[in-house]
Amino acid sequence: MKAPRDGQIFEAALLRDFACALLQAGGFTEDQARQTADVLVWANLRGVDSHGVLRIPRYIEMVELGLINPAGIPRDEFSRGSIAVSSAQRAPGAVAMVFAARKALSLANDHGIGWCSMQGISHAGAIGYYAEQIAKVGHVAIVMTASKPLMAYHGSKVEGVSTNPIAIAAPTLDPDRPLLLDMSTASVALGKIMAAKDAGKSIPLGWGVDRDGNDTTDPAKVAAVLPMAGPKGSGLSLMIEVLTSVLASNPLISVALSSGSDPGANGVAVALDPKAFRNQSFAADVSAVSDAIKTLPVAADTDKIFLPGERGFDEADRRRVKGITVTAGTLSKLSALASTLGVSMPGAFRHSAG
Amino acid sequence: MKAPRDGQIFEAALLRDFACALLQAGGFTEDQARQTADVLVWANLRGVDSHGVLRIPRYIEMVELGLINPAGIPRDEFSRGSIAVSSAQRAPGAVAMVFAARKALSLANDHGIGWCSMQGISHAGAIGYYAEQIAKVGHVAIVMTASKPLMAYHGSKVEGVSTNPIAIAAPTLDPDRPLLLDMSTASVALGKIMAAKDAGKSIPLGWGVDRDGNDTTDPAKVAAVLPMAGPKGSGLSLMIEVLTSVLASNPLISVALSSGSDPGANGVAVALDPKAFRNQSFAADVSAVSDAIKTLPVAADTDKIFLPGERGFDEADRRRVKGITVTAGTLSKLSALASTLGVSMPGAFRHSAG
Repeated sequence: MKAPRDGQIFEAALLRDFACALLQAGGFTEDQARQTADVLVWANLRGVDSHGVLRIPRYIEMVELGLINPAGIPRDEFSRGSIAVSSAQRAPGAVAMVFAARKALSLANDHGIGWCSMQGISHAGAIGYYAEQIAKVGHVAIVMTASKPLMAYHGSKVEGVSTNPIAIAAPTLDPDRPLLLDMSTASVALGKIMAAKDAGKSIPLGWGVDRDGNDTTDPAKVAAVLPMAGPKGSGLSLMIEVLTSVLASNPLISVALSSGSDPGANGVAVALDPKAFRNQSFAADVSAVSDAIKTLPVAADTDKIFLPGERGFDEADRRRVKGITVTAGTLSKLSALASTLGVSMPGAFRHSAG
Repeated sequence: MKAPRDGQIFEAALLRDFACALLQAGGFTEDQARQTADVLVWANLRGVDSHGVLRIPRYIEMVELGLINPAGIPRDEFSRGSIAVSSAQRAPGAVAMVFAARKALSLANDHGIGWCSMQGISHAGAIGYYAEQIAKVGHVAIVMTASKPLMAYHGSKVEGVSTNPIAIAAPTLDPDRPLLLDMSTASVALGKIMAAKDAGKSIPLGWGVDRDGNDTTDPAKVAAVLPMAGPKGSGLSLMIEVLTSVLASNPLISVALSSGSDPGANGVAVALDPKAFRNQSFAADVSAVSDAIKTLPVAADTDKIFLPGERGFDEADRRRVKGITVTAGTLSKLSALASTLGVSMPGAFRHSAG
């Protein structure tokens, strides 16, 4: 089957089933495939297509390379007080991080706070997903992941730290709309630089440096993405590496910089129980500050003020109705994979308008 | 006594004794005065003069206004598992945050993690101080404070969130040089905008908005400071308010925006014990990643790569030898206060060169 030039639109549930079928055909167990497909399509629904189903061919390749174990089950290595250190056992990243979020919740029930360090994950996808899971049961979430150098450290001309993301979530009175901050420590997503390059457009200063370490407006010359807010972004990324990797005895940056090899990734999920703070009206209090922010007077060039995560929730509401556009490039890779693995393509809503 | 036009240079120890004497004469107990003076001069030593002894006249005014209680002793309200919620009892901010850091350490010894929410602090000074205290005993620190609206929320033209800072620290093999990230969530310190205004200079785009919410290069037109990295900075500040204020049942932003009053401030100190992670070489591992970052190739316009906190440690080494310059403006206020309170001025090294 050949994908049309302009992509296709799919219902979220059908795309999720298709993703699940592809992953199962590629070696994932049914549970692993369902959890992973859910994380991927969650990102597609929220408009973060870079973390959606386009990742599937690489995930299946990782199974073939032995980087993901289709039978791997994450396990607790040890636990003390609020803390558990677990290892991913090469289970898919989504499976490992769902395990970490559940473990953090369980520890928080006993100790007020739960902190699960998950060693050796593969790609975790959009980490806001795991933070949202924790917020959905009324707890506050902090989720971080760490990986190899992907971004310039402030003052250096080469990649020295990762774009390590952090997500922080808190429940509101609307169970479908927690506050959900999910940010990388980079100035911009690498995909935006790639898109400018493909489109032959220049990029603003502050996005990337050339091979001499000079800030550049030419996307073709970008040797390393710059951190968000200069030293703050690279400093925060380094401290996330300390909290996520070094503390759990699986350092990545020092290993990658000295050996040049890819040391994999780690994750942390933290849950805080508002009841341990004797806060009986926490979700209402979070809604109160959210409402206060939403009703601030808007700036001249702005239509609407967005709470952390709100753009994603709005987009998901739209895409649940109108469907998810899979671009022609992604679709052709997925249909080739489907053909190889003997998985049938889902029916499309209609051809995308562009 | 009249201060010379160009300020004076003082030895750190003498400046600390002078600060302590002023605070005691202004009503602080000896312990409170010593702790507060130590935090203030720590900031002066590190080059963060905006958080140094220039704060003393306001602190003493706060005692007179009843906002600081010279006899106040912070106390635990309740504790569960890893968590303690404490109240500052109007003790000076430094006293309350030192209490919170010690409480977090004590909880971490029992539970792996300690989280102390300190309600109702007054100005805490440079929060890196408390993070450093925790790192000095080998633990990882996270310290945050929250206060009233001082910065534009992304998309709004008025102050909607505070510039809430976060500090994260970790020990290295050098006990005097932990990694010490200490950053506000604003794009720039308000003092830099004031300095440009005084000097009649323009400011870069991205620092502040005028009263219509337009980004401005005219420091005189700044109605609100902009967040670091746009929505990331204001989103992170809002989540710090949730973690620091809302969770501990003392919300500030919602109260300030609805009532227009100043609701005070809150703090959180978190300690994580590397031994609970069974990490026997934590400080060495942090040194390893620090060394790897320090030896990255530098960018074209850069002499040296700085680790989080390193500029401050370097400056403190210089100022311990060369002394701390107190500007003429600050000195005239401090000497007027000293004269009122009957405190003698310390001897200066020499007049500052400018």
